[in-house]
Amino acid sequence: MTNLQKNNPNIVIIGGGTGSFTLLSKLKNYTQNITAIVNMADDGGSTGILRDELGVLPPGDIRQCLVALADDQSDLRELFNYRFGEGSLSGHSFGNLFLSALEKTSKDFGEAVDKASKILKITGQVIPVTLSDSHLVIETSEGIELKGEQAIAQMNWKEGYKPKLSLRPESILNPKAATAIEKADLIVIAPGHLYGSLAPALLVNKLGKLLEHAKATKVYVCNLVTKPGQTDGFTSVDFASEIERFAGSNFLDYVLYNSQKPSAELIAKYAKDGELPVDVGKPDKNKPKFIATDLISDEIYSQNPNDNLLQRTLIRHDAEKVANELLTILNLEY
Amino acid sequence: MTNLQKNNPNIVIIGGGTGSFTLLSKLKNYTQNITAIVNMADDGGSTGILRDELGVLPPGDIRQCLVALADDQSDLRELFNYRFGEGSLSGHSFGNLFLSALEKTSKDFGEAVDKASKILKITGQVIPVTLSDSHLVIETSEGIELKGEQAIAQMNWKEGYKPKLSLRPESILNPKAATAIEKADLIVIAPGHLYGSLAPALLVNKLGKLLEHAKATKVYVCNLVTKPGQTDGFTSVDFASEIERFAGSNFLDYVLYNSQKPSAELIAKYAKDGELPVDVGKPDKNKPKFIATDLISDEIYSQNPNDNLLQRTLIRHDAEKVANELLTILNLEY
Repeated sequence: MTNLQKNNPNIVIIGGGTGSFTLLSKLKNYTQNITAIVNMADDGGSTGILRDELGVLPPGDIRQCLVALADDQSDLRELFNYRFGEGSLSGHSFGNLFLSALEKTSKDFGEAVDKASKILKITGQVIPVTLSDSHLVIETSEGIELKGEQAIAQMNWKEGYKPKLSLRPESILNPKAATAIEKADLIVIAPGHLYGSLAPALLVNKLGKLLEHAKATKVYVCNLVTKPGQTDGFTSVDFASEIERFAGSNFLDYVLYNSQKPSAELIAKYAKDGELPVDVGKPDKNKPKFIATDLISDEIYSQNPNDNLLQRTLIRHDAEKVANELLTILNLEY
Repeated sequence: MTNLQKNNPNIVIIGGGTGSFTLLSKLKNYTQNITAIVNMADDGGSTGILRDELGVLPPGDIRQCLVALADDQSDLRELFNYRFGEGSLSGHSFGNLFLSALEKTSKDFGEAVDKASKILKITGQVIPVTLSDSHLVIETSEGIELKGEQAIAQMNWKEGYKPKLSLRPESILNPKAATAIEKADLIVIAPGHLYGSLAPALLVNKLGKLLEHAKATKVYVCNLVTKPGQTDGFTSVDFASEIERFAGSNFLDYVLYNSQKPSAELIAKYAKDGELPVDVGKPDKNKPKFIATDLISDEIYSQNPNDNLLQRTLIRHDAEKVANELLTILNLEY
């Protein structure tokens, strides 16, 4: 592990979902000052049902980040990820029900997340990027609008199309997220679904400007593979450019991308689903700097349909390698 | 408060439901050594749905006892009693879901209750009377059988009829319950539904013999009013005699019953529903001793349909008065 020139650096991860989960699980071993700022536009699965039926804010991504930062020994950790398999509760993750019931018995969702953080004895903090009850909306060139992160995640469009996305109603940045960003030494945009997960986080009002002016070093950890129907043919330059388009500011200092070829066998498996390794592309500006390195996990993962934290992850980031690179970048800047 | 001649006396409460809840909430202030042994035949409401759909043991009465013994300041206390009001989760108490998910991620329900006890930082311990998945069964003189605590609680029969009840399949006494009973200084049969709640606790195999031989002073706190269609005309002597019939042993040392008349207004309100204050009756044996005293709460409670802990309780035990009497009895015996 890199020797840190600064003790307990203040690290902020922006995202939600699996990419944030694996990165947070690893980085919490290197600093107590770790903050997850989480996308709040999820409306699929158990989370979507709870939003619809109870009128609560989406708990799913918050749950995953809480579990990532929870005490590994806590009984509650396993419980939070437990998913009911039968009957009328089928498909609900217990942690989602926990957060929704906490929201119903708290001042607001922010307080519920704080209470859950205490109960799970997490390292650092988990912050909803907004407490606004907003949904992701896509607007086509013909003016057709479609609402819903889940629905948008399942759309296909022609290669090269850059969808017009927004949050409705307007999302107000959580002041706690603003404070965390201002104090950060390192801000990481986690790998994840570009349009379904990173866009709704970065589209929150004023976040982009805040990121631009923050003193932190800002790094985007680029996805390993493309998503068919949405990011076909994307290079890491394309991914980074979309990230900055959502934010409305050229805030990125670095893009970390993988240059290690996966095995031919894995590539073939992925290609069958239309997912292909992301090439670097040709950076046309001085900033951000693109850093090529080996970020791939050597382990071979099998797909477990019951474990939503580990779905679709045959080619995965090695969180240890990513953490090492991030901390190396942080040291460069000191 | 009575000066205790023994510090931290070892007190066991047998029952479940509201009667146990109020008594446990009060007694935990006088001793750390408090144990709730809980009826496990409940099959109504949220608990019944979870038993049916998930194949778990009934969490409802366990939940109430855990909440009664929980740290009053705990955020989880309110959460445990939260009941979902809308959608597919409607009617489920969060605490029930908590215990069911814990059971699914634990070795057995006993371990789940232990984990929940730690999380809720309870005083004392809560012990399921059995870990057998048994149901209460009533057998009529014509040989007709009816299964289910909930169904039996709603039956009516002619005054004076003593129903033949059993647990199917046979319930095996939880060894932890046996240990608690053997160590106890005072064992209390809590007030509660005679046939729906106390019978299924006392019918558990070998419990009656164990109670008979236990060194503790054994007290039954008699109900304040009769239940129409089931205990019409019952005196405290009748209640106590049924308690000993279920247990199959004459284990009771004392019966504590209320001798303070409720206000005419309250009696009239109750009488409208067929519920009448319980008279002492004529004890025909030396044992148990019947102790008449004022056990009624002076507060007037309104019925809150959303709070299942406090339902149907216009005339209530004053837990403080009951606790005082119990500790006085305990002192007499030292």
